[in-house]
Amino acid sequence: MMENKDKEIFGGERVSIREALVEMKSLSEKIIDLAYAAIIFDSDDLANEVENIEEKLDRLLYRVRLTALMAGRDPQLAEQLLGILQVASAAEQIGDAAVSISRLLSTNVEYRPFIPFILKGGDEIIRALMVDESSDLVNRSIGGLEVEGETGARIIAIKRGNRWIFNVSDDTVIKPGDTLIVRGVEGGVEDLEAYCKGERRWGQ
Amino acid sequence: MMENKDKEIFGGERVSIREALVEMKSLSEKIIDLAYAAIIFDSDDLANEVENIEEKLDRLLYRVRLTALMAGRDPQLAEQLLGILQVASAAEQIGDAAVSISRLLSTNVEYRPFIPFILKGGDEIIRALMVDESSDLVNRSIGGLEVEGETGARIIAIKRGNRWIFNVSDDTVIKPGDTLIVRGVEGGVEDLEAYCKGERRWGQ
Repeated sequence: MMENKDKEIFGGERVSIREALVEMKSLSEKIIDLAYAAIIFDSDDLANEVENIEEKLDRLLYRVRLTALMAGRDPQLAEQLLGILQVASAAEQIGDAAVSISRLLSTNVEYRPFIPFILKGGDEIIRALMVDESSDLVNRSIGGLEVEGETGARIIAIKRGNRWIFNVSDDTVIKPGDTLIVRGVEGGVEDLEAYCKGERRWGQ
Repeated sequence: MMENKDKEIFGGERVSIREALVEMKSLSEKIIDLAYAAIIFDSDDLANEVENIEEKLDRLLYRVRLTALMAGRDPQLAEQLLGILQVASAAEQIGDAAVSISRLLSTNVEYRPFIPFILKGGDEIIRALMVDESSDLVNRSIGGLEVEGETGARIIAIKRGNRWIFNVSDDTVIKPGDTLIVRGVEGGVEDLEAYCKGERRWGQ
């Protein structure tokens, strides 16, 4: 099955290897946010998700390498593949570094709260925002609201009761009591906070 | 001088090591954007900036390590420092991986254009947008416009004539003919493109 699919790739559209690389790029960007968020919020759940994404990156790298090995002896194709392998392997290294950051949570460091405090600074900040039931965000989708367009802040994960939503998409609907983990410049995050608290009406 | 400063840190406010770590976090996030942008736009200048930031990360890691070594024998402090060293070292590894990506430009790969094409996909996209002289953005600052808040797209670098502005801040003023390297979700980047071309009036 996999063999057939990967042969197709090199025959014509190269869909599968392209998809794998696009996914590795997205995951390598996302895993850094989640790793810093894990130590800022001292969250084992976020750290576990970092490990999950790292495993996904490993599997994708394996798939890209396997596909490359089956490419045969076409020199032009081999040159293309060299570049692809380099990017894929670097994306996987980014994942490893993110895991090093989030594993800080499992080391026996007594004064860990010092770190979150440090990392709240920087160009972009990461914050947890609770959605009040009076908020305009309630029962609306992230895409419908155009959260990132309106505020410049991006929702990287949502905590809902005891469970987490890591796979936040445009279709994700915000519920009262949700805790949004957001990343953005300070002003944007503050705007979103005012909407979450119901202090501001959406679009005003 | 450095000794005095770093003793201060551990005595009271911890300003210097905190600043170093905050800067490492910001740079480790920024360098990934720039590395992917370098290969998407096939830009040696962007790749050079990736190398510059990687050197900055190296120097900051060195400084954090040096400070840690001078901390003395206080066990509580040592525990704090373990965590800090772990984060600092991971941030530097992220820089190394970013350099691996951008160095793709200096390898002799004939079919490199294949890669940029691949990497335009993903959750967030990176694009180059030219600012028309009829655009509302002209002669206004990024902070005054609230670019990220209005569009959700972030300007990660600007090409102005022959030179680059990598240190984009709220105070940076946009000029006609600027090429903005932006990152964001597709809808947000398209909005910003319409403003850049003067097809849409700002705030409408």
